[in-house]
Amino acid sequence: MNEVKLRFHLIGRFKLSKNGAEAKDDVAGVIDDANKNILKKGAPEGGGAEVVSWNVDDTIMVEIKSDRYVRAHDALLRLRKALTRILGKRRIGIRGIEVEKFIITIPTEKPLRKLKIPFVKDMQYKNGNILLELDVAEPQIESRVPDRIITLIVDKIESQKYGKKEHWELLWESKEKTLRFTGDPTQELIKRRWIKHGSCRGQWIFGPQITKVLRTFEQIVEEEILRPLGYHEMVFPKVVAWDVWKRSGHAKAIYPEMYYVCPPKTRDETYWEDIMDYYKVTLEVPLDMIKERIDKPIGGLCYAQCPPAWGFLEGETLPDDILPIRVFDKSGTSHRYESGGIRGIERMDEFHRIELLWIGTPEQITEHSKKLQERYKHIFENILDLQWRMAWVTPWFMAQEGLGGLAEKKEVGTIDYEAFMPYSKKWMEFQNLSNNGDKYPNGFNVKLQSGEELWSGCSGIGLERWAAAFFAQKGLDAGDWPSGLRRRVKTLPEVFRFL
Amino acid sequence: MNEVKLRFHLIGRFKLSKNGAEAKDDVAGVIDDANKNILKKGAPEGGGAEVVSWNVDDTIMVEIKSDRYVRAHDALLRLRKALTRILGKRRIGIRGIEVEKFIITIPTEKPLRKLKIPFVKDMQYKNGNILLELDVAEPQIESRVPDRIITLIVDKIESQKYGKKEHWELLWESKEKTLRFTGDPTQELIKRRWIKHGSCRGQWIFGPQITKVLRTFEQIVEEEILRPLGYHEMVFPKVVAWDVWKRSGHAKAIYPEMYYVCPPKTRDETYWEDIMDYYKVTLEVPLDMIKERIDKPIGGLCYAQCPPAWGFLEGETLPDDILPIRVFDKSGTSHRYESGGIRGIERMDEFHRIELLWIGTPEQITEHSKKLQERYKHIFENILDLQWRMAWVTPWFMAQEGLGGLAEKKEVGTIDYEAFMPYSKKWMEFQNLSNNGDKYPNGFNVKLQSGEELWSGCSGIGLERWAAAFFAQKGLDAGDWPSGLRRRVKTLPEVFRFL
Repeated sequence: MNEVKLRFHLIGRFKLSKNGAEAKDDVAGVIDDANKNILKKGAPEGGGAEVVSWNVDDTIMVEIKSDRYVRAHDALLRLRKALTRILGKRRIGIRGIEVEKFIITIPTEKPLRKLKIPFVKDMQYKNGNILLELDVAEPQIESRVPDRIITLIVDKIESQKYGKKEHWELLWESKEKTLRFTGDPTQELIKRRWIKHGSCRGQWIFGPQITKVLRTFEQIVEEEILRPLGYHEMVFPKVVAWDVWKRSGHAKAIYPEMYYVCPPKTRDETYWEDIMDYYKVTLEVPLDMIKERIDKPIGGLCYAQCPPAWGFLEGETLPDDILPIRVFDKSGTSHRYESGGIRGIERMDEFHRIELLWIGTPEQITEHSKKLQERYKHIFENILDLQWRMAWVTPWFMAQEGLGGLAEKKEVGTIDYEAFMPYSKKWMEFQNLSNNGDKYPNGFNVKLQSGEELWSGCSGIGLERWAAAFFAQKGLDAGDWPSGLRRRVKTLPEVFRFL
Repeated sequence: MNEVKLRFHLIGRFKLSKNGAEAKDDVAGVIDDANKNILKKGAPEGGGAEVVSWNVDDTIMVEIKSDRYVRAHDALLRLRKALTRILGKRRIGIRGIEVEKFIITIPTEKPLRKLKIPFVKDMQYKNGNILLELDVAEPQIESRVPDRIITLIVDKIESQKYGKKEHWELLWESKEKTLRFTGDPTQELIKRRWIKHGSCRGQWIFGPQITKVLRTFEQIVEEEILRPLGYHEMVFPKVVAWDVWKRSGHAKAIYPEMYYVCPPKTRDETYWEDIMDYYKVTLEVPLDMIKERIDKPIGGLCYAQCPPAWGFLEGETLPDDILPIRVFDKSGTSHRYESGGIRGIERMDEFHRIELLWIGTPEQITEHSKKLQERYKHIFENILDLQWRMAWVTPWFMAQEGLGGLAEKKEVGTIDYEAFMPYSKKWMEFQNLSNNGDKYPNGFNVKLQSGEELWSGCSGIGLERWAAAFFAQKGLDAGDWPSGLRRRVKTLPEVFRFL
């Protein structure tokens, strides 16, 4: 973004409380001075903004050209401040700003496809530049709408040029392990009646045997991670309101992948009586009628597990001596509208995670992340005996905001844990671990008493993903399983048989 | 319903493959005979249906009057069968049925309010009767639409007459107990920062202390119920498709109280790009745009916890020797769009339950229910020392289908467990236990190898409700708690402090 040579051309008007002709010389003085000083401030030699023409009558018209160092709309606000002072002496007030014309020129090799962006009147591609004509008024300039439009366009140009730039860098890889199974674990689970497809897309009902294995994974996490590392359990909410996703950043890009939750418009039974009657008579649920009676979505189902926990801390100042905070949640389901065909328990629309969340100073976060990595390594190597690897990837919170690349600070980012799937010869991500930097404390306005920087980290342990990885490598026969798991599982319950 | 004196008047036509004039005498014979035999079959002396006039040309017109014993539309189907046989001899085929006029008379003291019911052309109130004019064709008669319309109207008349008839009958009541607290438990929990309101209606974030208490309740359930009574854990799905609620009966009445789940219309990112851009520029989520891009609801969030488990057994035949099946689920949240003002943790839109489900012969279900009642009594009396009572109430599955009263079989029904809330001097339901009879095996088509009747029972242990009851009576100071709980809780974790 720093390298993009932006140019701005803006014609604006300051509305006056009375005709400003008498103040013409004063205005001339302000503008001459501004062109030398306040419109150059912060820009390198030869850069900044310039008022290239102006006029005073019932309004003060200014035509501004600028570069990226002092953007024309910022110049307009700087001018207002200077003019307000000088006009005040003559009891002339500035009653508002109008923007007559605002064109931003952004160089790029290729045009972007047609876009519908709020406050953009027109967008053209000419001679290697995108010409962006904005239709903004004072409130949009005050709330920095033009800056966000520019960021958006520049991001699109870069993403067109470089793609999503998903980073992937191998950190560590286990030895090859003894693989006991080469089939598709989901097919085998179905065959043995350990799972059955649920009534919804990407959803499974788990029978007693696999549930026992999932709960044994949970027990391992408790014995090897939660207790030794000092975690305490909380219960995080599972329906997530838009406000949480605004603060967590998910509101930027979550839409194609989320499940939306809508409440009824009212709980009044008479409002719903004809729908109940329709069903009782026809035995069909009248979805078109229902769609009209439900409200706009209040948000959606849990997508990333930790964001709604931050409400507990929102707006608070914490004493330093309670750090590092270590809490976890395993109170419910996560949901994603997943792509692709049937992927069984490897990629589900409804799944279960243990989510770890730790909060502390940057040093504490980094140190804790290392401890966690050791514990995970111990589990995957010595208990589950998996063939697995770790990679440094685009941080999950950036990926989920539609961004690529890496975070600016090198400690901040995500480690993906991947397991080898013998049946497909592919690697599958089965959990991750992230240092989220100051992202969440900033988003939810959580501060430290000392004023020091506050960071956080999180790690999502996907129980079905552990199961998919484990079964894919070791199969479903407990006799083939490593002793550390077998010992903990003890016996697999036999509850059902079918004819 | 048995006592309602229904009268039917139907004019219908059998469409013929060619003019039926030549068969007039045969038709006369069939109708004479039908008026004596098949249209009286199953009716008491003097009752049944009668063809009061008829005619043959390109069609056979019949005018039928009847009572509730042989409903006119059933009479029409009986006549078709008889006519088909006799006309077949002359190579005349019946090509379909048309219903020209169909009026059902239902006596009632008061008119119903205006209703919009499918296949009802007109509904009038005259001289103590509702006159219902149906607009049905052959498919509706075949699929029993008229019968369901009658049931619906009769239910509405009865509900208008008697109200919802919610049954409540005290079964047992504990002695008065030592009450350690008289405040509103929710207010005290907020004050001590054990809970904080979530981002959604009726939703709370649970901090480490209360989570420890909830998990201790879970431990008690495990030690005192799940293990001794031989339960095994499963994972039941948490988004519930309409098809499940059709089979469970909830589709009859759930609409005002459920949370609806809608998927995106597509996962294609370009379809959502302008919405992402809108958010990135304005920092506002454009709900009106989003509403147009999401699909009709696929169902809703978990409401009653056991229905989606039945998919595991749907359409299966079970060997008798695996009974009684005992499984439970504690894998996620339940959600209800609740009425009333703020009720804190006593009435939440998002809450957590351990759901027990047992399946077996009628005797096994009844016997297991008794064992469970004993275990519950032991917990509430000897471990939690609650002031509580049990009542025999309208079965939950009937209540949730908008019905009142009691089930037809006396063993089938629901026991509500209620705790005394000192601060409000009211009783609060904190869990229930139901014998659901053959409802679920029937709905999900699950059979027993022996052909014997299959029943089921379920019990929802509401963790927040247990907490509300317990805190309301004993307060939040662990020193005041009965030793059986204190011993299990050990220490309450102190993770957070705020400035």
